[in-house]
Amino acid sequence: MRLLTLLLVAFLFVPPSNALDKDRQGDTTGDHHGPRNVILFVPDGFGPAQGTMARDYKRDYLGEGSALVIDGIEVGSIRTHSTDNRVTDSASSATAYATGVKTYNGAIGVDTERRPIGTVLQAAKRRGMATGVVTTTRITHATPASFVAHVPQRSMENEIAEHLLWTRPDVVIGGGTRFFVPDSEGGSRTDGRNLIEEARNLGYTVALDRSDFNAGSSMPFFALLADDHLAFEVDRHLTDEPSLADMTRKALELLSQHEDGFFVMIEAGRIDHAAHGNDIAGMLHDVLAFDEAMRVALEFVEEDGNTLLISVADHETGGMTLGRNIDGRSHYGWYPEVVARVKASHGPIVAALTAEGRDPVEVIDEFTTIDDLSDSEIEALRATINDGRGANGVLGEIIARRAVVGWTTGGHTAVDVRLHAAGVGSERLVGNHDNSFIGQIIAEMLNLDLEAVTKDIRSELAAQALAE
Amino acid sequence: MRLLTLLLVAFLFVPPSNALDKDRQGDTTGDHHGPRNVILFVPDGFGPAQGTMARDYKRDYLGEGSALVIDGIEVGSIRTHSTDNRVTDSASSATAYATGVKTYNGAIGVDTERRPIGTVLQAAKRRGMATGVVTTTRITHATPASFVAHVPQRSMENEIAEHLLWTRPDVVIGGGTRFFVPDSEGGSRTDGRNLIEEARNLGYTVALDRSDFNAGSSMPFFALLADDHLAFEVDRHLTDEPSLADMTRKALELLSQHEDGFFVMIEAGRIDHAAHGNDIAGMLHDVLAFDEAMRVALEFVEEDGNTLLISVADHETGGMTLGRNIDGRSHYGWYPEVVARVKASHGPIVAALTAEGRDPVEVIDEFTTIDDLSDSEIEALRATINDGRGANGVLGEIIARRAVVGWTTGGHTAVDVRLHAAGVGSERLVGNHDNSFIGQIIAEMLNLDLEAVTKDIRSELAAQALAE
Repeated sequence: MRLLTLLLVAFLFVPPSNALDKDRQGDTTGDHHGPRNVILFVPDGFGPAQGTMARDYKRDYLGEGSALVIDGIEVGSIRTHSTDNRVTDSASSATAYATGVKTYNGAIGVDTERRPIGTVLQAAKRRGMATGVVTTTRITHATPASFVAHVPQRSMENEIAEHLLWTRPDVVIGGGTRFFVPDSEGGSRTDGRNLIEEARNLGYTVALDRSDFNAGSSMPFFALLADDHLAFEVDRHLTDEPSLADMTRKALELLSQHEDGFFVMIEAGRIDHAAHGNDIAGMLHDVLAFDEAMRVALEFVEEDGNTLLISVADHETGGMTLGRNIDGRSHYGWYPEVVARVKASHGPIVAALTAEGRDPVEVIDEFTTIDDLSDSEIEALRATINDGRGANGVLGEIIARRAVVGWTTGGHTAVDVRLHAAGVGSERLVGNHDNSFIGQIIAEMLNLDLEAVTKDIRSELAAQALAE
Repeated sequence: MRLLTLLLVAFLFVPPSNALDKDRQGDTTGDHHGPRNVILFVPDGFGPAQGTMARDYKRDYLGEGSALVIDGIEVGSIRTHSTDNRVTDSASSATAYATGVKTYNGAIGVDTERRPIGTVLQAAKRRGMATGVVTTTRITHATPASFVAHVPQRSMENEIAEHLLWTRPDVVIGGGTRFFVPDSEGGSRTDGRNLIEEARNLGYTVALDRSDFNAGSSMPFFALLADDHLAFEVDRHLTDEPSLADMTRKALELLSQHEDGFFVMIEAGRIDHAAHGNDIAGMLHDVLAFDEAMRVALEFVEEDGNTLLISVADHETGGMTLGRNIDGRSHYGWYPEVVARVKASHGPIVAALTAEGRDPVEVIDEFTTIDDLSDSEIEALRATINDGRGANGVLGEIIARRAVVGWTTGGHTAVDVRLHAAGVGSERLVGNHDNSFIGQIIAEMLNLDLEAVTKDIRSELAAQALAE
């Protein structure tokens, strides 16, 4: 009845073909019908089974309800293949999310011809919006890099650091300090530039530790919180680093001060790293930290009422399965309690296992509470005393066979990844889409002109190249 | 403008609080606003990676577009765990889909107390709708059984055959003839009953071969097309069996003759079987056959305009991954062309490999076009001459390592499965849900009284037990 009254009023007082059709269709192509803000989460390496694992752990081990935060906002899935491989890497997939253009593995913000392509972050900035990149990895790593840089290979992290300052997002939070500091001062830069100083000269408030991070209250804000990646969540208590939820809260607090809306990319970047190492506990706790950051974002979305939240992994890592064969026989079930007892990521455990004078049986018991090692497991551990990679593999299998968790690879797999969305326009994301759709829909929702920004950045980058 | 005119007309001529609110919200909770028909597909063992595999194959090998039929109607995913295991079996998951009640592994239409619970099929029949079960497995197998029978263990297939006739769906299409025929006539029944005769006496047109199947033109219709399961799709050319698309077409043709709507469960039942055997080609072609059957169903839905189509797997099988380690090193990519050259499911190949006097190298070349076997592969094949299970494993790995496909188990895994829906009310299915949601939403959509049917069947089954 209320709807009808509204419609009748609309019919009588406004041009009907305009206001009504849009309301009905959830149309967001018009100038003012999209969200004001877009928050894009990228949980790197987060496949479908990783989600089931975290939910099972939360429900059955922690006893904290039957669902993850993300379960409440699932809308479909994303196909991740790149132009040159059915299995993508993070650079190619993130570039598709950032630009709406599919490209080759390793590409950072460039197309298959290695030409720079404008990103939604750069286009949002050009439209007067505030922008941010947040990650638990080095800020120069493939995923954040693809939103702010244009280089043909992801390994060019010194150049990516320069492009980051050139793109100049209003909020930058992550690790990777060394790519901003000259080698004379312990960094990785061979050009003598100190980009931290340059950032200060550009007006950034620079935070290099937790207290500066906590104190940050205005934009532009630049937080470099680790020389390399930030810690895995399971090891974070050994550092003073903020959680991804803390970083999310800070970014939203700052960006929402801007009146003309914002775009921010927030990466849960180390799910992938743990999965590469087939490190179940490392991975699980980073997934849970991602879900907590999503809670922060979702609360913002609900309160703000003018924001679109999207979350989508770039690919799955590890070929992880819940349930596997044990000694040639299939086993139904998997056991979160085994993972719960693991107190660290593989790194500290392998360091102890390969340290002089440590008894591997004691190390395993100390870090994992596993005290029933078989003779062949003990033998395998003893054989890897000076072999970190070997020890990592033996350790992983000791935990995985007891948790009944399978892994097929130290790399990525091709499986579609889950897509989550909430807030203004989220109904438009329902379904199964190619990864390039993400960049395209963000551009459409925010009414961004990606072609114009591509033209601009190509001119600017060409001019810079001439000047050098 | 057209919408507005319609709304205005509606306002002037009908009670507004009725027609309009429902149209706007897609509300289906009222008596007459749900779909008239529901088609539920269950692709058994079909996990997220299986879908990516079939799409990649179709796109890159067959060159038939960039998406599967199901990709166009994805709406979310389903959590599959049972009451007694984080990894479900087909019985428990199908019972949740059939009844809206979560139960234990092995349970067929009964709750955790082993008490019968009414199914949406039985409730639809009670409401005067036509009903059907269709599958490529034995019709007495776990998935179809859970919609028509109530027994504490899935292995009780003789009893399930009796319950099937007692539930009396209008359309029954599948395999498993032996559970309907007495052992004196080559069947599995030890009670002397011939349920095929009993079906005829109940008025069923019984089809026991392809020509009878093709001729079937009215309900009730009962097609038993194989003594055991129907063939894998990749081997079907050796039989005269219909495809799942043929069976779907036949079922919809018959069921749609009924004026008061229908419910049908259609199982693509052998994706699971191939995946249990880590048989990539067997699995892939059954997935493609499922997708073709979905095309038939989707065309019906679009033409009919009054049907809800749902598709959801019961669980993933095999822990299958696209990309894996080869000889301890991660490999990015997977190769559909390797799978395309495999001409049969594992069964016929293993039969040839283990047959007297056959050279395994020749057999592999003949069936798979693989002619570069390593010495260790040849040795492994020769060691399994009289060992079917061993030969299956060696064969599977010969194909899998060249296709770069990983498997972690001969059983099931816990990963969430993809949910697809189209037609009237499909927007209600968007999201991530527990498997029990499927039974509940079907009941709600069709306005079924599951409690009443539970009461009815308990009385009837108790009376039968007393009479025996």
